[in-house]
Parts: sequence; structure tokens; C-alpha cells
Amino acid sequence: MGRIGKLHGSNIQNLVKDAEIVLAADPYLNDQTLEWAQSVGIPRCTKDVEEIFKGPDVDAVFICSSTDTHAEYIIRAAKAGKDIFCEKPIATDLGQIREATETVSKMGVQLQVGFVRRFDRSHKAVHDAAASGRLGKIFLVKVCSRDPEAPPMSYVEKSGGIFMDMMIHDFDMVRYLSGSEVTEVYATGACLVDTHFADYGDVDTAIVTLRFANGALGVIDNCRQAPYGYDQRVEVHGEKGCARDENHLENEAEVLSAGGIQSAKPTWFFLERYNDAFVEEERRFVRAVLTGEPVDASGDDGLQAVRIAKAARKSLELGRPVKMDEIGE
Amino acid sequence: MGRIGKLHGSNIQNLVKDAEIVLAADPYLNDQTLEWAQSVGIPRCTKDVEEIFKGPDVDAVFICSSTDTHAEYIIRAAKAGKDIFCEKPIATDLGQIREATETVSKMGVQLQVGFVRRFDRSHKAVHDAAASGRLGKIFLVKVCSRDPEAPPMSYVEKSGGIFMDMMIHDFDMVRYLSGSEVTEVYATGACLVDTHFADYGDVDTAIVTLRFANGALGVIDNCRQAPYGYDQRVEVHGEKGCARDENHLENEAEVLSAGGIQSAKPTWFFLERYNDAFVEEERRFVRAVLTGEPVDASGDDGLQAVRIAKAARKSLELGRPVKMDEIGE
Amino acid sequence: MGRIGKLHGSNIQNLVKDAEIVLAADPYLNDQTLEWAQSVGIPRCTKDVEEIFKGPDVDAVFICSSTDTHAEYIIRAAKAGKDIFCEKPIATDLGQIREATETVSKMGVQLQVGFVRRFDRSHKAVHDAAASGRLGKIFLVKVCSRDPEAPPMSYVEKSGGIFMDMMIHDFDMVRYLSGSEVTEVYATGACLVDTHFADYGDVDTAIVTLRFANGALGVIDNCRQAPYGYDQRVEVHGEKGCARDENHLENEAEVLSAGGIQSAKPTWFFLERYNDAFVEEERRFVRAVLTGEPVDASGDDGLQAVRIAKAARKSLELGRPVKMDEIGE
Amino acid sequence: MGRIGKLHGSNIQNLVKDAEIVLAADPYLNDQTLEWAQSVGIPRCTKDVEEIFKGPDVDAVFICSSTDTHAEYIIRAAKAGKDIFCEKPIATDLGQIREATETVSKMGVQLQVGFVRRFDRSHKAVHDAAASGRLGKIFLVKVCSRDPEAPPMSYVEKSGGIFMDMMIHDFDMVRYLSGSEVTEVYATGACLVDTHFADYGDVDTAIVTLRFANGALGVIDNCRQAPYGYDQRVEVHGEKGCARDENHLENEAEVLSAGGIQSAKPTWFFLERYNDAFVEEERRFVRAVLTGEPVDASGDDGLQAVRIAKAARKSLELGRPVKMDEIGE
Repeated sequence: MGRIGKLHGSNIQNLVKDAEIVLAADPYLNDQTLEWAQSVGIPRCTKDVEEIFKGPDVDAVFICSSTDTHAEYIIRAAKAGKDIFCEKPIATDLGQIREATETVSKMGVQLQVGFVRRFDRSHKAVHDAAASGRLGKIFLVKVCSRDPEAPPMSYVEKSGGIFMDMMIHDFDMVRYLSGSEVTEVYATGACLVDTHFADYGDVDTAIVTLRFANGALGVIDNCRQAPYGYDQRVEVHGEKGCARDENHLENEAEVLSAGGIQSAKPTWFFLERYNDAFVEEERRFVRAVLTGEPVDASGDDGLQAVRIAKAARKSLELGRPVKMDEIGE
Repeated sequence: MGRIGKLHGSNIQNLVKDAEIVLAADPYLNDQTLEWAQSVGIPRCTKDVEEIFKGPDVDAVFICSSTDTHAEYIIRAAKAGKDIFCEKPIATDLGQIREATETVSKMGVQLQVGFVRRFDRSHKAVHDAAASGRLGKIFLVKVCSRDPEAPPMSYVEKSGGIFMDMMIHDFDMVRYLSGSEVTEVYATGACLVDTHFADYGDVDTAIVTLRFANGALGVIDNCRQAPYGYDQRVEVHGEKGCARDENHLENEAEVLSAGGIQSAKPTWFFLERYNDAFVEEERRFVRAVLTGEPVDASGDDGLQAVRIAKAARKSLELGRPVKMDEIGE
Repeated sequence: MGRIGKLHGSNIQNLVKDAEIVLAADPYLNDQTLEWAQSVGIPRCTKDVEEIFKGPDVDAVFICSSTDTHAEYIIRAAKAGKDIFCEKPIATDLGQIREATETVSKMGVQLQVGFVRRFDRSHKAVHDAAASGRLGKIFLVKVCSRDPEAPPMSYVEKSGGIFMDMMIHDFDMVRYLSGSEVTEVYATGACLVDTHFADYGDVDTAIVTLRFANGALGVIDNCRQAPYGYDQRVEVHGEKGCARDENHLENEAEVLSAGGIQSAKPTWFFLERYNDAFVEEERRFVRAVLTGEPVDASGDDGLQAVRIAKAARKSLELGRPVKMDEIGE
Repeated sequence: MGRIGKLHGSNIQNLVKDAEIVLAADPYLNDQTLEWAQSVGIPRCTKDVEEIFKGPDVDAVFICSSTDTHAEYIIRAAKAGKDIFCEKPIATDLGQIREATETVSKMGVQLQVGFVRRFDRSHKAVHDAAASGRLGKIFLVKVCSRDPEAPPMSYVEKSGGIFMDMMIHDFDMVRYLSGSEVTEVYATGACLVDTHFADYGDVDTAIVTLRFANGALGVIDNCRQAPYGYDQRVEVHGEKGCARDENHLENEAEVLSAGGIQSAKPTWFFLERYNDAFVEEERRFVRAVLTGEPVDASGDDGLQAVRIAKAARKSLELGRPVKMDEIGE
């Protein structure tokens, strides 16, 4: 019941139909957490996650714990026959991811991975234009993703680096938008926001170019600091046209004066920008659980994004493009 | 527990902190309504509204019943010492409104009237720019408000006409934006959407020009049919500049092709456009109840909007401008 | 060869094909004007306007002199069999206008009146959407026209007032956009920019509402001061949708920072905004001269705009709506 | 007097003050060209370019001939003491460029290279925001440049390839925007528009990432086919914010209907988009000639863009990043 767990919890209780939380586990359960749980109508809490997997009235689980526990919890939940929503990434080790997804597959349960941006109404509209064929053959996918402010160095140290922590969302996004698999990755980066990123072998600004199996090209730019707000834009170019989106602004007002036109900034960060997308993500998961229809972001999607992140890391270290088949499947 | 009652009810239970519904009344209470009440965690329902006014654990009431009951319920709630949120209009009879607001005043309770647009983030940003003095002396206020589709004639018959039913929001908006009282009104209108509006002495398209006590001018246009979605835009022009806002679109994507650029429509109607504004309205009311600070839309605001609607109606009938002092205070 | 004469002159010499100036007249011809004429390649200048009407190699004339000479020059040019471009207004006296247009008609020459805004690419795109039927039946036409800064009082004194001097362009625009004739006008106004406008019986801010023969409504707002630049926007609402345009900005760049998004202002005034429109206007006139096809802004268009200006003036003075048949045809 | 020569010629004669063409040379001079020259008031034409260099009344020359003649003409003009405007590129051979720029330097004449985009009002506004320090330290420069339609293969064959023919403008643009020199280039590309590009060892779609001496990163994407019009956008991201621009549209109108909002496309190609920029480029050159102030795009700018194009080509061929010091200075 950390930040993202509480977000999903509140949403499910308040905004998602046909689902209710019967039990929530947190190994560090304390009074504050209990109070929160009560406030959103969660009837029972426990420190023992095993109770969830054993719970006879539990149809599905949300795994919102730290990354190092994801794969294990997926496996235990799958073996217990529960459908699973798991925050990204499934793991940073490809073997663990594969073990988890294979168990899911064998047990025939649903697994949805938390690539929340697929549920953003603007990104989805771009995706839908591309997927509908309106753009013809896809030539290029571009993703711009810039955080408003850098996290503390204590976070950076354990983050897994910019590709695994931040750009992983964009690696998923380019697969989602292109409808194709990445075949080659070239990464470049620099410490421009704060030289301390280098202390952890990390960069704070990065550009990655990609090649896709369908021939298309891709490019992603990330930065840890964009003081004007969360810069989240995607573009797909095809033979017949282009689909793209703009940032969501804090409001749609503008002030015109002798000095020019002043408008509101983009929304501040992911809680603001993807506020509605989280709810849509949860609704779609509940629908998949209830109907058995495929989820919108699968275990394989989770796997591929991690593989691309590893390829980007390797490219940055070696200073050359890296083919995806250099990265274990 | 009609449409707007359920909207406020769900929001309060799910999205508004520091408030919970202890009791809900509906004279037509049925199984469906009870089920809804249960789903949002309302612990008790009744057919007898009197129970609410008597309820010892009731601090404040939301009046979401039909317009003809508003004034009476305000008076009863006020006499019971409850703070009051009441949907607009308070009444269509000025005497009734005055009796209600005087009772509120005498009893020292809060009364907030449901002018939800004051809580829209874009309209508020325009207001704030004007109120801050950035625009200098106010010259002109413009409001464009066009519904996506006309209501059924059964609704039109009892609606009170376009000025009382639809433009009343805009009359409040021009007072809010100009920071001044209307002194004169000229209305023109026509039946362009559907000639049946004329059967009820009504029009479906109207323009109203206004004069304000601070010298500014105003203009409002309304139409019952705008098939591209809910057109909701405001502008304030002053000696130093202009503040204005744009419609909120369904998403921020666009598709560029040989045929031009295609974007999403404005959000469909008030439930979509003012979705967030309803929650903000409720939060601000709860804050006023808890802190005793003034509400953002008072009983007097409710009164003035009805007076302007009456002046507009009279102007349309007489074919000449009508001064506000021709309308009883 | 005043300001507007030089504008047309330079454009014709430099940017309009199939036309060249053979002779230019200016009663106040001086060295400076001669120098200008030489610089744009005008081969001959004269103080005697009669030379133009007599000129055997003159196919068409541009009348860019003061308003009080327009009607007389039109008549003389028409009698000489020349096609005519005349700046607006033809005259402020309806009898004079009628005499001029009747002479034009009798002599079978072309007369195009300088309603340059019809040639603006954005306004024209709105017009074309309406005229094509894409919007269905027309409900409402809106024109916002606000000058960046007020003229000197010496100009105001002789301007003919806001309706004849400034809003006349908008009266033409609403006819152009609605495709219909005005039947009734209601005007309101105030001195908000500068109280000295009142010294000349004038206002600096005005709203006019209109009724059209096809049932549509219209509204125009004018102001003499908009320090953010020339505010020039039009809208047409119909049963199937709306066409509208935005101001043209000085450039399409924006700067995003912690304080918001800063963009460029609208272009400053008519020379900047309608720069391209003047050239298009001239090209279209030359085309009409060469092909005999109808002009895009006729003598009757010139007449009707003046009639509406007179109705607006009368409405402002009487404080009531004025029917167009109260104004002599 | 090919296409670009006529463009400069017409502009100088019609739109640029303080300059006039006294003599124009074209080895293929024919009646059609003579007619054009006469129409814009060029008093004398010749087949012998030498006449220009010898002309005693020639202060400056515009070199608009084929690329293979640029360096030689620059040298001859410089030796004759004429100031020089030369279309890009100066040459494709670095030795030739250096010889030309050294001669220019020795002779103390002005040389402006035709990087017209520096004179586009929107790109310049982005540049000015970056150069002013408003964005703080520069992190990233992005340029999107996509042509509306591919040239014929006969052109492609002799074009020098996408980097030398098309992206060279963008290489100049990233130097202009970043205020820094490129140190490393990585190029990727593909034949997605038309596989025949491969017949000439060329690609039709390319992404280039760059590193700059000041630490900033850069990325450019090019494509030979964007059927929605000429896609020309730039962005600069810095520690304090971002400056960017949008495409210029054919007009600023939009049509709203049940199907969404329809707007005009970006302007079609460089003649439309950079129409005003060409005039500004010429005016700035004339100013430099008359005042002796530095030009806005120098011979060294011409040299550096060609060097980067060569590095990009090498990177594409070798499949690895290329350092600029691998390319001869």
C-alpha cells in the first residue's frame, strides 16, 4: 500500500465498477495505512501477502509492491489461479520475467502489466489512427518524454538507470504505436541536469533511435528535468499522413497582452497527466477478468520493454548500435 | 436522487474529502435508487425529506430536487440550522427567492447555489486574470454557450424558457467575470433549430447584450443545437488585454493527411465538460461548511441571475432594451 | 497617392500579374510622391485626375482618394468606360452611392469596392465552409474586430463614427458570411477607451446584433483598443456545425517555462494582417477586368454596408432596434 | 536564372529596398528568360558570367547556378571585390569550399550562404529564445523536416544523397539553434517511401543524433514524403524551459462538426513556407553589403554543414557513430 498501491486502491473502490477490494496486504502495515484502507472501504488488511493468494473470494490481485517482488508474486498468484495486474517492470532479470510469464501461461490466468500510457486518451487516439490504416505503412514513431524534475540521488541509485526506470514506458509506447517489434537500438546520453547521475553510471538526458521489424524507424528522447511540466508527446508518421498529440495543459485559458499570449503549462507529472489513464487501465483489467478477453498490455509486452531497455543500456556502454538478438530472449 | 442528485452523491462519497452522506431522501424511492445508494456507500435512505432536516448528525444538505421545491427546502434546512447547497435556480419567483435568502441570512447558515461553471478550471483562470487587474479596466465580457442537442419538447414545455433554463448559467458567468452588476439587457432570438420551440413561446437561439454598473458591455449567445459538442467559451476584454478560454476537447491528438488536419471534438455536454468542476464545486462547499468562509456562489448570485433572466425575457417580448430596475429586486 | 494608394500601387507593380500602372494622379503631387512613383516604376504622374479618365491606354482605375471624392470619380470613370476599383465607403450619402452604382450599371463597367477582408485566406475559408452547405442552415454569424490602438481625436472627428469608419468592414463581413441581407439592427456602445470619443457623439466600444432575411442572427463587437494586436475573428454557426478562424500570430513559436507557455501576439494591425489579402483583392480585380467575370465585392455590397452603418447609428441614438426598411434604399 | 535565381531576382526587384539588379547572366539565356527579366525590370542580360565579375556598377552578386559552379564563382567574384550571396551548398568537396572561403577572407568581401531557414520568423523566434539565455543551459535540439513529396529519381541520382541535399539545412539549423559545433554524428535510415532510393545508395527516411561541443544533444528526422504538407518544426530544450515552433498552416480557419474539427494543412513546400524568409534573407544580405556588418550565415556555416553531412553519410555506411574530427576540416 505504497503510493501507487493507494492510487489503484482508491480508484478501484471509487471509480471502477464491478470490482471491489476484499483484502489488502502490506508487510509494513501501520495505523496510517489502516486508516487509509478504512477511508476507501477496504474491509480487511493483513501483513501476510499469502492470505491474498489463499483468499477464496479473491478473483484477481494487484501487485504494487517493490520491483524485486513482482515475479515471485506473479508466480504465486498464477499458481493460485488468480488473474493478475502487475506494475512495471515485471523484473529486471529476463529469466525471472520468463519464468513468471510462463507460469501465467501454463495456469491460464490473465496478466496485465502496468503500462498506463496505453490508456491515455490522446496516445490511444494516435495509436488508433495508426492501427486503423489511415496513415498507411508506418515510417517513423517518435516519443518525447521529459519529467518535470529529477528524482533525489537516493532514488537514482536504485532506479536501474534511465532506460529501465523511465524510458521503459517509451519502449512500450513505440511498440504499441508501431505495431511491430524492435530489431535494433542505438542510445546516446549525457549528464546535463546533474553531473551526479554519472556517479551511478547513469545519464539524465538520452536519445534512442530504433529499427522495427516492419521497417519503420523510431526515436525517443528523455530528460529528467523539464521545468514547464511533464512533456508527453507521441507522433506516428506513415505514407499517407501523421498522427500526433499534444501535452495536456492545466487549463485552456490564455491571456493576451502587449507582451504576447500567455497560456497554462502542461500538467505537472504523471499523477496529473495520467490520472484518467489509471482509471481506464483498471477498468480494462476488470473487463478482461470478467470477460476473459485479452488484456491491453500483456506479460510479453512487459518482457519486450525490459529487453529493449537492456539493449539501450548496452548500446550506451559500447557506443554502437545493438541488435535485439544480442539480448537474450 | 435524480440525475444531478446521484452525480453529487457519487462525487461526495468517492472524491470529496471530509464529507460523507449520512442520509438521502427521495419521495419516489425505489429499489433501483436504493441499490445505487448502497453502491456508493450511503448508509440510510428515506422517502421523508423531513428526516434530513431533523437529522442530528446532518451538518449540511444538498438540495437536488425539482426547482419548485428549492425555496421551501432551503427555508426548512436553514431553520434547522443546516448549511445548504442548492441546485440552480433557487426559484423562478423573485419573492420566493428573497424569502429563502432572507431566512438563510437570519439563521446564519451557508447557502451555495449550483453555478458549477464558476469552478471550471478554464473559466476560473479567465476570471482570475480579470480579477487580478492584469486586464485593467474591463471593457467587454463575452460568453458563448451552445448545447450539443436540443432537449425533448416535453422538457422545453416546463423548462421556463431558454433564459431561465439555459442562459441563466451565462448570466451568472458574466457577473462572475465582470465583477459587476448588470444594469440593462437587450435580447433577441429565433427558432432556428426547431419551430416547435415557438409553440411554447420560446426560442432556441438567442443573443443577449448587457450593460454593467462598471460601464462594461457584455454579450451572450446561446443555441440549443451544436452538433460538434458543448461549446463553452468565455472572453474578457480590458484596457490592457484579453483573457479567454477554449473548449475542452475529447483528446489532444490530431491526424494530418492530404485532406487537412483532423482533431477531436469538444467534450459532448455538461457532464463531460464540467465533470471536474462538479467535484471542485462540492469540495469548495465542504470547505465553506467546515471553515465558515464565504461560499463561491451565494444566494444573492442565485437571485441576480434569475432577475437578469426575467429582464431578458421581457426584452424579447417587448423588442426593446430593459433596465434592471424595471425588474423587482 | 496617400497611404492606401501607395499600398495598391506597390502591389500592382510588384506582385500582381497582367496589370501595370500607366498613370497616377495626386492633386498634392510633390517630390516625395514622385520619387516613390519612380521607385515602383510608375511611368507618369499628374496633378490632374482628369488625365486618367481621358487616358486612352487606361483600362481600369483605382480610386484611393478621400471618401468625399469617391462617388464623383466613380461616375466620371464609368462614363469614360473604365473598370473601377474604389476604396470603401463609396460615399456616406445613400443618394450619392446610388447615383454612382447606377452609372456603373448603365455604362456596363466593373466596380469592385475595397472590402479587403473578403480576400483574407482565413475569413474566406470560413465563408467557403458556410457557402458550401457543410454547416447546413445558418443560425448565427459572429464577428470580433478590435483595433490595436485608438486613432487620434483629429481622425475621430472626421471619421464618420465607429459604425461608418470601423464596423463597416464587419457589416460587409456578416453579409458575406451569412449569404443574406440584414433586416434589423440593434446597437449598443460606450466610451471606455477614451471619454473624448463622446465629444464627437461617438463611442469606442460597440456591440451590434443583427437579424438576417434568411432567419439567421448576427453579432459584431468592435473596440478601438486591443493592446495585444489586431483581433480579427469570425464564426458561422449552422445546424450541422461551425466554421471559425483564429487571429494570425506574428510567428508560430512558443516558449515553455515554469511560468507557463508564452506565444507571439496577433499581427499588429490591418497592414500586417491583411497584407496578403490586399494582393489577392487586387489580383481578383484584375481578373474581373480581364475576363468580365463578376467582382467579389460589388457596388451593391458597398451600398448595403453603408445602409447598415446608418441603421446602427440610428439604433444607438434611439436606444431601440431599427429595421432596415427604416433606412432609405 | 533557374527557379531559385528567378525567386531571388523577383524579390530583389520588387520587395527589397536599396538594391537593384543591373545585370543578370545565364549561359542558357533564351527568349523566355529574357521576357522574365524584362518583366521584373532587369535592364541587361548576358550569357557570359564574366561580365558580372567585370561590371563596374556591380557591388554584389547572387550565385544561383548549379552547385558545381559555386566555388569557382565565389572565387572569381571575391577576386573582383564583389560581395557574394551564394546558394547552398558552396561545394560538396571540402577543399573547394576552403579555397573559396579563404579567398573571400583574403579579399575582405562579404559571403552569405543561402541557409534561408535562419530567416524564418518562427525558427528565428526559437533561436532568439535560446540565444537570450531564457532557456538556461541547452540540453537538446530537435529538428523535424519532412518534404511533402519525393523528387523524381532523375533528381535523386544527382542530389548527393539525403544528407547533402535535404538534411544539410537541418545540420545548419541545429548549429544555429544550439550555438555550438557538432562533435559526433550517428545516422540511421531506410527506404520506406520508395525502394528505388536504394539504387542510388540513398535513403528516403533518416534519423541523425548529434553531440555538440557545449554538451548538448541533438536529433533530426527527415523524410522525403509527408503528404500533409511541409513539416518544419524545431525545438530547443534547456535547463529552464523549452522553445519550439509549429508548422505554418494554409489558413487559420477550422470547421467543427459531428465528425470532429477540421483545419487546414501546413503550407505545401519551401516556396510557400519560406516565402517570407527568402525576402528577409535578401534584405539581410543587402544590409550586410551596405553596412559591412557580419552576415547571418557565413562561409564557415556553409563549410560546417557540409562536414556534418559527410559525417552522417559515413555513419550510415559504417553503422557506427562518427566523430567530426574524422572528417577533414
